[in-house]
Amino acid sequence: MSNSTPLWSAFCFLLQSRCISTGHMTEMQRPLLQDQDQDSDSLSTPSVFGPEGTMSVVKLEEYRERIRKELDSAVDFWLKYSHDTVHGGFFTCIGRDGKVYDELKYVWLQGRQVWMYCRLYRTMDRFRKPEILEAAKAGGAFLRKFARVSSSQWKCAFCLTRAGKAVKIQRTIFSECFYIMAMDELGRVLDDKDMQLEAEQMMKQLIYWVKEDSSGLGRPQLPGDVPTNSMAVPMMLLCLVQQLTDGRGQEVVHKYRELASWCVEQILQHIQRDGTAILENVSPEGAELPGCQGRLQNPGHALEAGWFLLQVSAEQGDAELRQTAINKFVELPYQKGWDKEHGGLFYFLDVDGHCPTQLEWSMKLWWPHCEALIAFLMAYSQTKKPELLETFSQVYDYTFNHFPDAKNGEWFGYLTQEGKVTLDFKGGPFKGFFHVPRCLYMCERILDDLLANTKD
Amino acid sequence: MSNSTPLWSAFCFLLQSRCISTGHMTEMQRPLLQDQDQDSDSLSTPSVFGPEGTMSVVKLEEYRERIRKELDSAVDFWLKYSHDTVHGGFFTCIGRDGKVYDELKYVWLQGRQVWMYCRLYRTMDRFRKPEILEAAKAGGAFLRKFARVSSSQWKCAFCLTRAGKAVKIQRTIFSECFYIMAMDELGRVLDDKDMQLEAEQMMKQLIYWVKEDSSGLGRPQLPGDVPTNSMAVPMMLLCLVQQLTDGRGQEVVHKYRELASWCVEQILQHIQRDGTAILENVSPEGAELPGCQGRLQNPGHALEAGWFLLQVSAEQGDAELRQTAINKFVELPYQKGWDKEHGGLFYFLDVDGHCPTQLEWSMKLWWPHCEALIAFLMAYSQTKKPELLETFSQVYDYTFNHFPDAKNGEWFGYLTQEGKVTLDFKGGPFKGFFHVPRCLYMCERILDDLLANTKD
Repeated sequence: MSNSTPLWSAFCFLLQSRCISTGHMTEMQRPLLQDQDQDSDSLSTPSVFGPEGTMSVVKLEEYRERIRKELDSAVDFWLKYSHDTVHGGFFTCIGRDGKVYDELKYVWLQGRQVWMYCRLYRTMDRFRKPEILEAAKAGGAFLRKFARVSSSQWKCAFCLTRAGKAVKIQRTIFSECFYIMAMDELGRVLDDKDMQLEAEQMMKQLIYWVKEDSSGLGRPQLPGDVPTNSMAVPMMLLCLVQQLTDGRGQEVVHKYRELASWCVEQILQHIQRDGTAILENVSPEGAELPGCQGRLQNPGHALEAGWFLLQVSAEQGDAELRQTAINKFVELPYQKGWDKEHGGLFYFLDVDGHCPTQLEWSMKLWWPHCEALIAFLMAYSQTKKPELLETFSQVYDYTFNHFPDAKNGEWFGYLTQEGKVTLDFKGGPFKGFFHVPRCLYMCERILDDLLANTKD
Repeated sequence: MSNSTPLWSAFCFLLQSRCISTGHMTEMQRPLLQDQDQDSDSLSTPSVFGPEGTMSVVKLEEYRERIRKELDSAVDFWLKYSHDTVHGGFFTCIGRDGKVYDELKYVWLQGRQVWMYCRLYRTMDRFRKPEILEAAKAGGAFLRKFARVSSSQWKCAFCLTRAGKAVKIQRTIFSECFYIMAMDELGRVLDDKDMQLEAEQMMKQLIYWVKEDSSGLGRPQLPGDVPTNSMAVPMMLLCLVQQLTDGRGQEVVHKYRELASWCVEQILQHIQRDGTAILENVSPEGAELPGCQGRLQNPGHALEAGWFLLQVSAEQGDAELRQTAINKFVELPYQKGWDKEHGGLFYFLDVDGHCPTQLEWSMKLWWPHCEALIAFLMAYSQTKKPELLETFSQVYDYTFNHFPDAKNGEWFGYLTQEGKVTLDFKGGPFKGFFHVPRCLYMCERILDDLLANTKD
């Protein structure tokens, strides 16, 4: 088994010494982490927490305690209810009480669960349990056997029957993205070169679809369907570059360097309207698109892109990119997306204030809140600007007051605008073992690090 | 211009003499309309309205008055705001105040608006206006020029740019269905045989896709994707049979007779669980399907199927089918789908009480309420059972208290479970000039007829 660094190069760059060995930053890493914003009033604050330092440490410890418990509870829930011991893989349609209400297996969620199990197993001692490894292996085997529509092509299904027969194919790249994440992370845990090769070959195909020719995805070319830079695509590719290169040395980093730069550039193109908005869809040249599609804002997605960019900025020591990430992809989507009346982040918004056409636009979903928690805590950890921690705290309060299910464990995923649970399942076609544990895992580790530093 | 009978053969069978000529039923038609249920206590009631007759007539007149006004207002709204005088066709993304917020043209909605304009023009004197005819012609020309993806195939786009370039294709039959409705109804208004031939040829292709080979729709055949009898398909085909045969004599009726029977049979297969539920998706043999898909209930759809079946039963004088339609497709979906706490019809429900996975399951949409109004009023008009009128009245109160926009005209389409407007546009990708005016048109005519009969 490999002891290499965690998924996100940048994140691991910040945390690796602590989580893997001593629990302390190296001297080389510290300056970047503690570097203050050039325009920040807190520049001269010597401690992480300012005058109310002691109080803040207590608060951070409270956060960490709750977050740890929630992570343990989420892991227990999925270990207990989601494993298909007959066919391998995971049930993902799981009711509030843990009962499976549909046996379909969504490939995104299979890949994500394998990845998350392996990441926890590989990097957190308390999750180094045989049952987690065995479930990840069974999930990986299921994916490898059934996800690809045929052995002669790389296209993966979106949804499989319990026994692995393809039910539906999406004409996008996302099943394949989560397949790559699963294969690479499982390959690391098992030190399985063949599995990693599978991930790399799929990645090659993905890059071809995105950058050369998308016709293999099955979407007909239509004259009115203008080329679009949709935020999800460069975000996912950047995430995969970080997965595939992490801790693998210069040769691999070099192989994907150009792609990584392209992804960052494509993500930055979503800054529109003179820097006052992040738009979800722009032209490949970075111009605003007409109509609803062009005006769409997805605050949760922007926040997720924000912490992806923060990792890149940390990895590359790029202070300008960090500032852009914080101002435009963390603070701005929060300002625009936070519901001043009822709290919580809207799912979709129209930049000109029209009503979005997505029926769920005003609902509060769990995952944008997960992304916001990571984004604000990471931004705070990199800058020590108190207002970033304050916003983290506000998102934390909303999130922990609304989403966790005290009775049966795990989180609800879907609330009305007013904050009432309106879909009460724990897992569904798009909610699996991923955003909740990834958020808790990332936040726990950032908090570990922040707290370790206060004790230096 | 043809003066032939309205769309729905059965409905027109009930109404044609009144609306087209004298305003009274023929003797031949009256017995079916006034026939009482075999099991109804009201069998011996001599008047339509029982002991409170006078009161009820006043109430019915009130309904008709409001419905007329709402229909006029809806027509005015779309006449004023939706016409694209440059390219033809209709803008359908129209905000609460009438402003166009997106120029995309959805083919379903183009077809529906042409159909509805023509139907109003052809059958209601007050809508026989040149501007309605001109708009319908321009919409029909736009559809004919641009809806089909290429002149060598019948597949239609789902969505077009303002100028008519294809943006998106659905792998279903519904764009084509509304294309047929538009062509046939416009063909009737213009007495244009070529247009009607176009509708018939498209219909032939549709039947082939549904009954012989669906591969031309572009959906890949997947081993886990089991064949499904989805309610929408036989419903739409039945609707088209009624459109194409209406008033056209025995030869045409004969041509589609077998298909009509097949549609009814396929719809009746959705009665499941020993007659206690209408399920949206069943196997082609009428067995329940596993999982969420199999347990899905869509009360609005069932109610729409209900009044389609009522029309067939009236046309064929089939009392048993009428009873099934009322018990299973009108009363049952209402009992199951009505929200006892907040009022209104749920969008989706799971027959076993699981939470549906559709995020909008608990929302109150305008169109199921439109279908419920038609279904209950038609059921009442055919049976005179007072409880059917009572339920109509309940649905009416909810609908007219929640959906119409007193300020700017037309109806809102999307409410929260609690009844708050949550998407405030008047037209969007799935809401156009169709369900609201069709409902008002149908109800006005049924009320005309009921009231005419009380005065005999």
